[in-house]
Amino acid sequence: MSERSPESFLDELLAAGLWVPSGIDGIYGRRNPFDRVVEAVDTLILRETADDGAEIIRFPPVIPRATIEKTGYLASFPNLAGSVYGFEGTEDEAVELAARVQRREEWSEFQTPIELMLTPAACYPVYPWVASAGPLPEHGRLLDVQSYCFRHEPSRDPARLQSFRMHENVRLGSAEEVFAWRESWVTRGAELLASIGLGAESVVASDPFFGRGGRMLSANQVEQELKFELVHPIAGEKPTAIFSVNYHQDHFGHDFGISTAAGEAAHTACFGAGLERITLALFAKHGLDVAGWPGDVLECLQLDAPRFHL
Amino acid sequence: MSERSPESFLDELLAAGLWVPSGIDGIYGRRNPFDRVVEAVDTLILRETADDGAEIIRFPPVIPRATIEKTGYLASFPNLAGSVYGFEGTEDEAVELAARVQRREEWSEFQTPIELMLTPAACYPVYPWVASAGPLPEHGRLLDVQSYCFRHEPSRDPARLQSFRMHENVRLGSAEEVFAWRESWVTRGAELLASIGLGAESVVASDPFFGRGGRMLSANQVEQELKFELVHPIAGEKPTAIFSVNYHQDHFGHDFGISTAAGEAAHTACFGAGLERITLALFAKHGLDVAGWPGDVLECLQLDAPRFHL
Repeated sequence: MSERSPESFLDELLAAGLWVPSGIDGIYGRRNPFDRVVEAVDTLILRETADDGAEIIRFPPVIPRATIEKTGYLASFPNLAGSVYGFEGTEDEAVELAARVQRREEWSEFQTPIELMLTPAACYPVYPWVASAGPLPEHGRLLDVQSYCFRHEPSRDPARLQSFRMHENVRLGSAEEVFAWRESWVTRGAELLASIGLGAESVVASDPFFGRGGRMLSANQVEQELKFELVHPIAGEKPTAIFSVNYHQDHFGHDFGISTAAGEAAHTACFGAGLERITLALFAKHGLDVAGWPGDVLECLQLDAPRFHL
Repeated sequence: MSERSPESFLDELLAAGLWVPSGIDGIYGRRNPFDRVVEAVDTLILRETADDGAEIIRFPPVIPRATIEKTGYLASFPNLAGSVYGFEGTEDEAVELAARVQRREEWSEFQTPIELMLTPAACYPVYPWVASAGPLPEHGRLLDVQSYCFRHEPSRDPARLQSFRMHENVRLGSAEEVFAWRESWVTRGAELLASIGLGAESVVASDPFFGRGGRMLSANQVEQELKFELVHPIAGEKPTAIFSVNYHQDHFGHDFGISTAAGEAAHTACFGAGLERITLALFAKHGLDVAGWPGDVLECLQLDAPRFHL
């Protein structure tokens, strides 16, 4: 447990000028060196996995609505999803929209759903793309993704942002290949975090499924040990998940029609490193003054060399 | 003019595996080395402006709805804006939402506007934050921002993405200070682009204001020379704006109540470097094989040294 409450840690970040408010809980601007550390953590992950041969691919923070509709996301997390609306009206309607805005009146009548949603997790965009390439090659594939993700859960807890970055590796292949990869990453993830001074604990965990039915899904996920979280104190009574390792079984294989070389529904797993959360854990553990962090942590993050924008 | 049509350049990018389709025009995944070059251009801008003393600040790709409502954005570009909707219903409604999704039926009845929009330009989030700090210091302020921006204009032109990154510097101060800064950047921007082999032409330009009234606003903007674009061929008959320098006069100063040290409405200006567009111009000019680019261009982008993820 941390000595700070989440709210007081947020106040510290704001007072130190590392974050600036936007007017909305869970949405902040970040000033150096906060994002410099986020980038250093991001690069550390790339460096540590460079020999694994992952294909690096990056997607924007919006995703086709059709991709999300193919998954169970809207059944499991309807409350967290963000969908994008736009204006597709006439010139007269545009005039009325602008007048409403100026009079501070409601203008949603002039918005209609467009074909996009906000990306809920960095790995979602890869599945339709992988499926479009036909059956997986022998031994499957390994992908590296990083993206802004969105979850609608306004909060004054700095570790619960509405818009945040997640760096993931995604393994697709046979059940055996994917399970073995998942097993290895519970350990590798802990070692990666230890290298920057974060002694994280591994716990069996579940996703925050919505509603009454969600409790059963969560219990099932825990019983089958499908999700491991590496947790570290940031602020508040409970430690925060800063890295997760998730085994999806053949859910995405079925949803997107991805098959192995042998013709079976592909299994998938991913690790997800929460870049802001790891960065917050670093600030919580080592202090708000980066220059005072332990030398080996700065070295591991390559923040020890003179840099033009630290 | 370029020899390629926009569509054929898109096909080349997809065939080369630099981009991958998402199913939606204007939304693509990028594979290395495309984003490696985007990052190199981004870093080049930081390096070239390091001595200017800009305050570096980064915001997520979503912005409070209230911030956009304070500006004329929805009057000028209603068709380009994206607003975020979410689910705030009951458990029973969540069950019905999921059933609709599964039956491939319309589910927008369960979505309501939340307090966020997609960021339309990287500089918007700074204005309320600057205003909250009180009058500007003497000689004003200079800010460095970079963000994913969203514009709803699906297109098969690779230079017209719906979600793209823009690196901006924003100058706030007196009319004289801001005008002088703006003047200097028309030249500096061209020099920056020339350093990576892009001989861009400077043209007086206008924004794509919506509708009949928009034509007058555009004509006014051109007459007052408020917007300069540095244009370079990418694909198609006309060259593409890859860098713009914009003088907002005291519009944002008025909208957000930002005043100079002398107590007048602040003037503002910005330059905006379109990171994907500059990268596309580099690929169009120097070829799709980065290893074959001129040595001085690679050196200027620091892409000549061995890197672990080129």
